[in-house]
Amino acid sequence: MSSNHALVTRLREHLGTAAVLTDTDVTDAYSRDMMPLAASGKPLAVVLPSDTEGVQAVVKACAEFEVPIVPRGAGSGLSGAANAIDGCVVLVLTKLDQIVEIDEGNRLAVVQPGVVNLDFRNAVEKHGLFYPPDPSSYDWCTIGGNLSTNAGGLCCVKYGVTTDSVLGLEVVLADGSVLKTGRRTVKGVAGYDLARLFVGSEGTLGVITQATVALKPLPQLPSTLVAAFNSTEAAGEAVARVVREGLVPSLMEIMDATSIKAAEAYLKTDLGTSADCKALLLAQSDAGGEVARKELAVLEQICVDCGADLAYATEDLEEGKMLLQARRVVLTALEMYGVWLTDDVCVPRTRIAELIAGCERISEEVGLRIAVVGHAGDGNMHPTIVYAPDSEEEFARARTAFDAILEVALSLGGTVTGEHGIGRIKREWLAKEIGEVGIRVHRQIKQALDPGNLFNPGSMFSL
Amino acid sequence: MSSNHALVTRLREHLGTAAVLTDTDVTDAYSRDMMPLAASGKPLAVVLPSDTEGVQAVVKACAEFEVPIVPRGAGSGLSGAANAIDGCVVLVLTKLDQIVEIDEGNRLAVVQPGVVNLDFRNAVEKHGLFYPPDPSSYDWCTIGGNLSTNAGGLCCVKYGVTTDSVLGLEVVLADGSVLKTGRRTVKGVAGYDLARLFVGSEGTLGVITQATVALKPLPQLPSTLVAAFNSTEAAGEAVARVVREGLVPSLMEIMDATSIKAAEAYLKTDLGTSADCKALLLAQSDAGGEVARKELAVLEQICVDCGADLAYATEDLEEGKMLLQARRVVLTALEMYGVWLTDDVCVPRTRIAELIAGCERISEEVGLRIAVVGHAGDGNMHPTIVYAPDSEEEFARARTAFDAILEVALSLGGTVTGEHGIGRIKREWLAKEIGEVGIRVHRQIKQALDPGNLFNPGSMFSL
Repeated sequence: MSSNHALVTRLREHLGTAAVLTDTDVTDAYSRDMMPLAASGKPLAVVLPSDTEGVQAVVKACAEFEVPIVPRGAGSGLSGAANAIDGCVVLVLTKLDQIVEIDEGNRLAVVQPGVVNLDFRNAVEKHGLFYPPDPSSYDWCTIGGNLSTNAGGLCCVKYGVTTDSVLGLEVVLADGSVLKTGRRTVKGVAGYDLARLFVGSEGTLGVITQATVALKPLPQLPSTLVAAFNSTEAAGEAVARVVREGLVPSLMEIMDATSIKAAEAYLKTDLGTSADCKALLLAQSDAGGEVARKELAVLEQICVDCGADLAYATEDLEEGKMLLQARRVVLTALEMYGVWLTDDVCVPRTRIAELIAGCERISEEVGLRIAVVGHAGDGNMHPTIVYAPDSEEEFARARTAFDAILEVALSLGGTVTGEHGIGRIKREWLAKEIGEVGIRVHRQIKQALDPGNLFNPGSMFSL
Repeated sequence: MSSNHALVTRLREHLGTAAVLTDTDVTDAYSRDMMPLAASGKPLAVVLPSDTEGVQAVVKACAEFEVPIVPRGAGSGLSGAANAIDGCVVLVLTKLDQIVEIDEGNRLAVVQPGVVNLDFRNAVEKHGLFYPPDPSSYDWCTIGGNLSTNAGGLCCVKYGVTTDSVLGLEVVLADGSVLKTGRRTVKGVAGYDLARLFVGSEGTLGVITQATVALKPLPQLPSTLVAAFNSTEAAGEAVARVVREGLVPSLMEIMDATSIKAAEAYLKTDLGTSADCKALLLAQSDAGGEVARKELAVLEQICVDCGADLAYATEDLEEGKMLLQARRVVLTALEMYGVWLTDDVCVPRTRIAELIAGCERISEEVGLRIAVVGHAGDGNMHPTIVYAPDSEEEFARARTAFDAILEVALSLGGTVTGEHGIGRIKREWLAKEIGEVGIRVHRQIKQALDPGNLFNPGSMFSL
């Protein structure tokens, strides 16, 4: 206890009293992310430094006192990777919230981790530029969390995930030193690609305090297509055909029958689909003008050829937003039936229908509603399990379903996480996916960069 | 000697006699790449396994006998990273030359490292697919070498470098075990991004024996634009404007006055430029049809606005090839004046003219011809120094110029290598660019994955 007290005193000396929180009513609010499956502990303290030097001070102090650090951003994560462990220091990066630079001439920006994704998007948009990564929580998640989890979103089918935008990073290492890695140029092969090693490492290797990211030209306003199918196989075949024909829509989402019904009930409307509609595809083109018209015309024809009952394209922005609304409300709509637990798997794009079939089978087996929505264009699906909030027994069945879905994804040649990460809920699944040699290499790299297991110990893989 | 003999005997037992070469006349041919600056040693043996098991056997035997391994492909590299060191085993991957799979439905392929880049491009093209990385040596370099150096090419301005196409790797580690990392899905965040750690690691961390790569839809046939400027500043401003306006040509190359003159003399033609032409820009659009016409029209207007004396666009494929010919022959043309040493730097795209000005200054200082050609669209420039083949004194001045160019690139916020790598010629420059902390992290990772310094010791950074 006196050692803990000494650490808190040290932290307050460095950061000021206001930036070091120990009141458990307050620290509880920083002790977990949005994933109900993951356990969380009681932190010794929550610290909110406001610059790189402050982060260094925290790391050095915690290293000296051998107290683990759990770094976090806004806490929108869905893997428990930001959950506190008992006696740790939670290192909150939200006060490092400056957009340091927007360089139009080189289409890049330098940004601190605490900047909210949407604020950053809006800031670069004012310069005619586009930062693609758009996780669903983009209006409150932070760039730092996005980097740590290598976040994706709806844009990925055309623009890739977070790591595809990263040029360079500033990282505070376990000894408190500052690593500047990567570059400001669009190409560069000087040394190991350390930036991309830290991206997606979920806070286990260091603390990202600044990022240099590449920006894209602002795309045109999107045109939108919706297509309804009376079987998931037909919708899956349409996705596979889109890929095979070389189309790259800027968005391509899928909703299964359970998702459609939930959205219809929530929105108190029918989506214009027939009673036996089993899947909706929603696609967009942001190529603009004649090109977008052509892209959507080809998409529409593919959907019709694959047996769509309905296929409708529009250039009207508001109408497009309304159509996408059905996709966006699914998780909220599911709350009509209970609380939800969303999974995150990615399968080869030819096997989406098989994944949905697997989820239907699991739903019957566990006796719980499972709605499948996902980023069809890249095979990244989010089967979402609904259970009663106060039933431990249903929660247990939900957990069973969660794992069974991962098993199906692996059996289809997929991965156990497309964009949410491993964190504290899929550790054993990481081992299943990458095998013993893969885990050994993870441990070797962790040991090399963080020999004292200071950063997020026990997250992602066991030590 | 008897230990060496025992190792050779062991290698022959595993691989067969024909796959283990020790005749120095033969092994010399495998002892260096295309970079004249780099030293090379005499290998104990050159081995050519034909499968992953063979590679494992080589690694295990060399580990046991504590004999270093230098992995290599075709040897087209320009950094000396594949150069033999005295007493090493050169591990040649060219016999692992199978295209294992082309999956049209998921737009991916599985390929062994010994496949020649062009052969792979042609094979996937038959399926309507496109593998973007196109280093200048694409008709003889191998996929394995491309992966090890994270090779680029002319395509990068639109399609990125090798690492941007990599989904997964199979790697033989220093203990002979096989790591399978990455995935077959387009998204995935299960664990550290090990695939991208091995890509560009120049054979220092493991031996890549298979890669799963993402493919693109085959682009349209290119339309081509050429523009001539009477100052490099004007050409540089045009490049910056292209970036700022949000254009993404599929190719954008620059040639300085020295390159233009060499190409004209070699091709025995004038390129239609005025006598005081100081820079040529060559750009292409592969968007096809009306979109390509529009893209090139905007590019042309930007060039004219920036003061181009001549700007000419064509949709004719053959004419386009002829225009690009000037760019492609530069290195060959420079051989009229002596032998050349090509550098490889990347600067922010707004600073290309400053780099060329720096090279002109250095050329005057060292009294040697320096021609600057480069991938203007991504700032990756190849200043090429010409010197007399049999003059040690000129070679020394060429080396001075080579280093001076790196210094200029760093001073402009650039990197000391855009696509060729560090290898044995830029070790001290890597340290200058990434600093002490960066080098320490490199050593920590090397030590973690290759504690016996088996793989390419002393390349990229000192141990």
